[in-house]
Amino acid sequence: MPYNVADATRDMDDLIVRPAHVFKEKQGIDVRIQHRAEAIDPAGKIVTGRNAAGEPFQIPYDKLLIATGARAVMPKLAGIDSPGVMALKDLEDGRRIKVFIKEQGVKKVVILGMGYIAFEMCEAFRARGIEVEMIKPRPVFIPWMNEQLASVVKKEVEANQVKVHLGQPIERIARNGKGLRVTCPGLQLDGDMVLVAVGVRPNSELAENAGLVLGPGKSVAVDRMLRTSDPDIYAAGDCADAFHVVTGQRTWIPLALRANRAGWAVADNVLGGKVELQGVAGTAVFKVFDLEVARTGLSVEEARKGGFEPAEVVIQSQTRAHKHPGSLTIHVQLVGDKKTGRLLGAQIVGKEGAAHRINAAAVALHAKMSVEEFGQSDLAYAPPFGPTWDPVLTAANQLVKAV
Amino acid sequence: MPYNVADATRDMDDLIVRPAHVFKEKQGIDVRIQHRAEAIDPAGKIVTGRNAAGEPFQIPYDKLLIATGARAVMPKLAGIDSPGVMALKDLEDGRRIKVFIKEQGVKKVVILGMGYIAFEMCEAFRARGIEVEMIKPRPVFIPWMNEQLASVVKKEVEANQVKVHLGQPIERIARNGKGLRVTCPGLQLDGDMVLVAVGVRPNSELAENAGLVLGPGKSVAVDRMLRTSDPDIYAAGDCADAFHVVTGQRTWIPLALRANRAGWAVADNVLGGKVELQGVAGTAVFKVFDLEVARTGLSVEEARKGGFEPAEVVIQSQTRAHKHPGSLTIHVQLVGDKKTGRLLGAQIVGKEGAAHRINAAAVALHAKMSVEEFGQSDLAYAPPFGPTWDPVLTAANQLVKAV
Repeated sequence: MPYNVADATRDMDDLIVRPAHVFKEKQGIDVRIQHRAEAIDPAGKIVTGRNAAGEPFQIPYDKLLIATGARAVMPKLAGIDSPGVMALKDLEDGRRIKVFIKEQGVKKVVILGMGYIAFEMCEAFRARGIEVEMIKPRPVFIPWMNEQLASVVKKEVEANQVKVHLGQPIERIARNGKGLRVTCPGLQLDGDMVLVAVGVRPNSELAENAGLVLGPGKSVAVDRMLRTSDPDIYAAGDCADAFHVVTGQRTWIPLALRANRAGWAVADNVLGGKVELQGVAGTAVFKVFDLEVARTGLSVEEARKGGFEPAEVVIQSQTRAHKHPGSLTIHVQLVGDKKTGRLLGAQIVGKEGAAHRINAAAVALHAKMSVEEFGQSDLAYAPPFGPTWDPVLTAANQLVKAV
Repeated sequence: MPYNVADATRDMDDLIVRPAHVFKEKQGIDVRIQHRAEAIDPAGKIVTGRNAAGEPFQIPYDKLLIATGARAVMPKLAGIDSPGVMALKDLEDGRRIKVFIKEQGVKKVVILGMGYIAFEMCEAFRARGIEVEMIKPRPVFIPWMNEQLASVVKKEVEANQVKVHLGQPIERIARNGKGLRVTCPGLQLDGDMVLVAVGVRPNSELAENAGLVLGPGKSVAVDRMLRTSDPDIYAAGDCADAFHVVTGQRTWIPLALRANRAGWAVADNVLGGKVELQGVAGTAVFKVFDLEVARTGLSVEEARKGGFEPAEVVIQSQTRAHKHPGSLTIHVQLVGDKKTGRLLGAQIVGKEGAAHRINAAAVALHAKMSVEEFGQSDLAYAPPFGPTWDPVLTAANQLVKAV
């Protein structure tokens, strides 16, 4: 959606791959939109709720899939309900934001939060010539990111005329003439719109009220076959948890690939299949202006919490060969375990080749490779695509000494 | 070097990372250039040869490293020694080609061969406005490549006004007025220069004459510690063989990363270390015009020869998410083993994101992953960098059914 918001000429409906009626017509699937499921009765195997007209419905099931997703967290702040304070989670949000920008002639936005969506939207607003300030209560720009790498991202954001305010607890949002004012103890930010992008939480209330076991972050706990604590109820998507391939522990990292993969696995399993998912490595990437920012596995802090004894290296390398025209700087951080030598995580920041480079490390995490084994990988080399030693290998060679 | 040749304003010496005298001055290494080693006496542990002035020398050794590299194959053809028939292997070749283009005002080149160097040079010549025709005796454009993918490469080459002639056995090269003429039974190609790029062969005569065991393609056979059949003689670089991580067999795939890595390993081992190299996956990439062409592991034919029972899929996907601006087509081929389900190889062709995508598959080969395990990898997703399911995963999901 951020990339759609970035372009005033695009219709948000572009993003609809398949409208609801097609499911029915082409696949014989009875898709009931505007029906809110309000309760699950696991003993009676019935879902109850109401449609848009307020009429109650009851649907019995043999197997049930909870795929309720996640929603944007809206902090409890005075004025959070003011017109012009928006979040971006579903298509309706996206439409609303585009209409608001156009109708109100938005010139300036204040973004609360500094996660993936905050950065993507920050770029989208700048693409439309809108002034942006970003603000968050915590003092650290991107807490999960190595400090050196995070400072590269911060510089890129600031180089695009975005003001970043850290360590600013927000007291309230209020109307201020035609616009809005975000007030902190020592700071006031004015804008025509406030985008709230402080995170998401799972829509797990239905599951919780049905007595299902919850996992990290109040997500719905599922096993490798996506079964909840009730054998006839599955959960998949941003509402459900997953096993982390590095820690082996339950985790909640709501991202598109896992959500999609889990949906397919449930379909197979409901029909008698036995698809078990390995789990997630927490691999993610975002683009912010000209920078690609990618991660997989554990940060140093996460590794410590997971019972590892982490060592870390950060290297700076080039995206192309020695003297190759157009070569740019790339930063790689790798984390390994001193006790076992195992590779635990990677972070990459660069203006090209960061997004796909992270996947080599992600596969290594799935394979539980040691840092040394990963460093021995035979990766591709040609001058337009990297130095002879790919930056991830250079980092691995250095980390071998530290683990 | 091809990228240097592409730019008339660049000096070939740009590519020298460290000139010979610096080794001596900064590192105390006695680098003797213009000294040709002519024989190794393994019993007496002496290398003999002659310098540029024809004076003989004798150098005793405790440990010896053979790092003689490879040389361009020059087919035995009438006229192969004609002025203007050039190969590109060392810096001197590169300089000669640039001087020749400039001094002779080269307007048209005929390239013999269709390997990496042939394609890179084809692009380099076109960048300088030089007309190019490519010719080879064998009927198949890129024999190791899946046919569908190879046809994408062929179209890209032809779209850049390069004529491709397949299945044309070359009879002779001859002077033709100011230029050269390449003659085949039913075809004559004229050009100001002929580039011979039909492959390389290892400079292993020194090793062979010293009685060392040779490996595939007459490369010098080495163990995982880079020792030849003589315990005091190592070999590394394009002259030496390697173990293939997929087949476990000896192979000769002369590429930069392995050469460089083997050099470092020998340094450690000569000094008492015990560095063992895992081997190569045959991961390689080249750019030809706007296309990235990458491979790792085995082709179907190589898999069959290696004793596997290969299954193959080819998929076409997009380099960016649904409806993301700038999205391009990408083609992925994967090979798996029907007997074990193991992933055996991958080939990727696309206008963006092929070069680095191959590395995820390369790591999977090192880890001896099954197709199913690889397909479960948690890879990065963001709209500017790929669909939710990375094309390599889409291919793996399809190959699972076939293996």
